Amino acid sequence: MPKKVDHLQRRTLIADALMRVAAERGLEAVSLRHVAAEAGVSAGMVQHYFATKDEMMAFAMAVVRDRGEVRVTAAVTRLGAEPPPRLLIRTFIAALLPLDEQSGDTAKVALAFLAYAAVRPAAAAALRDDTAQLRSFVASLLPGPGADEAAGGLLALMEGLGLYLVSGQYTAEQALAVLDAHLDRLFPG
Amino acid sequence: MPKKVDHLQRRTLIADALMRVAAERGLEAVSLRHVAAEAGVSAGMVQHYFATKDEMMAFAMAVVRDRGEVRVTAAVTRLGAEPPPRLLIRTFIAALLPLDEQSGDTAKVALAFLAYAAVRPAAAAALRDDTAQLRSFVASLLPGPGADEAAGGLLALMEGLGLYLVSGQYTAEQALAVLDAHLDRLFPG
Repeated sequence: MPKKVDHLQRRTLIADALMRVAAERGLEAVSLRHVAAEAGVSAGMVQHYFATKDEMMAFAMAVVRDRGEVRVTAAVTRLGAEPPPRLLIRTFIAALLPLDEQSGDTAKVALAFLAYAAVRPAAAAALRDDTAQLRSFVASLLPGPGADEAAGGLLALMEGLGLYLVSGQYTAEQALAVLDAHLDRLFPG
Repeated sequence: MPKKVDHLQRRTLIADALMRVAAERGLEAVSLRHVAAEAGVSAGMVQHYFATKDEMMAFAMAVVRDRGEVRVTAAVTRLGAEPPPRLLIRTFIAALLPLDEQSGDTAKVALAFLAYAAVRPAAAAALRDDTAQLRSFVASLLPGPGADEAAGGLLALMEGLGLYLVSGQYTAEQALAVLDAHLDRLFPG
């Protein structure tokens, strides 16, 4: 199916351009025209693949999510079979946090999307499902009673650290120190 | 100084209009023209008070911060003299979280600002100072060794809960349950 592949490749190329524009100049600079210029294609070409800005944003958001999953899977796979729960949790949270410049750019875009989704209830539904799924998974790895609330707390802490990192308030070292101290409380002894 | 007061009032009126536009339609809808229409003044009037969109954004951001401080001070004052540390922390975090619709609108704007600041290093410096100050204050209220990292974790958790609330992923009850479970760990026994 060469045509279908080509379609997806073009859409991804355009989504990448959207992310570069958003990471450099903020979401308010994202327009069909700017994205087309960044991707080196015509505005008509962008419109051929995405009828509206909302559609383009939704696709780019899915790309960000997919890449996050790929990063997490790669990091967790490197741990080998049956890693201890604490190490597993620490590894995937570190893989999701914007600790380096490249993931920082992605996180800036994710943050911009979140602000965008906050005023568009339909966009928020997909986020809610993702979070609920992640929370159940984390809860299954945490010890003792109260694992569900503790999982919610750990994920909220991860989101907050992501915010601090992406807005330049924390360094990677500071964020990891806070995460490790929190994991010490969740996994005592 | 009636002139100065009038100046501040007008700027605040315009900042309020900016926040309504941002809360309803997102930050990318914020323009001199839209804000002027929402405030019921001319675009020329907006330009008289704010030379650039960045200046208008910075002022609105300061208004959001000031109102947060007012809410926290009012909530903490109601506790009376020398409240127990856990109650004090719980009260000011609840006052900062977007638990109702009105503070939800403010939080959507705050989130939009954060996304805006993430691509503007100068805007991030003010946030960093605020966070460092809040972290020291929280650390002074937490028991035992590791109070500084624990304070960083608690504030990150607060920011994450704010994100979940503002994007419609958590209800107020769910957010408070996660916060209380976390405080149980920080104040054992």
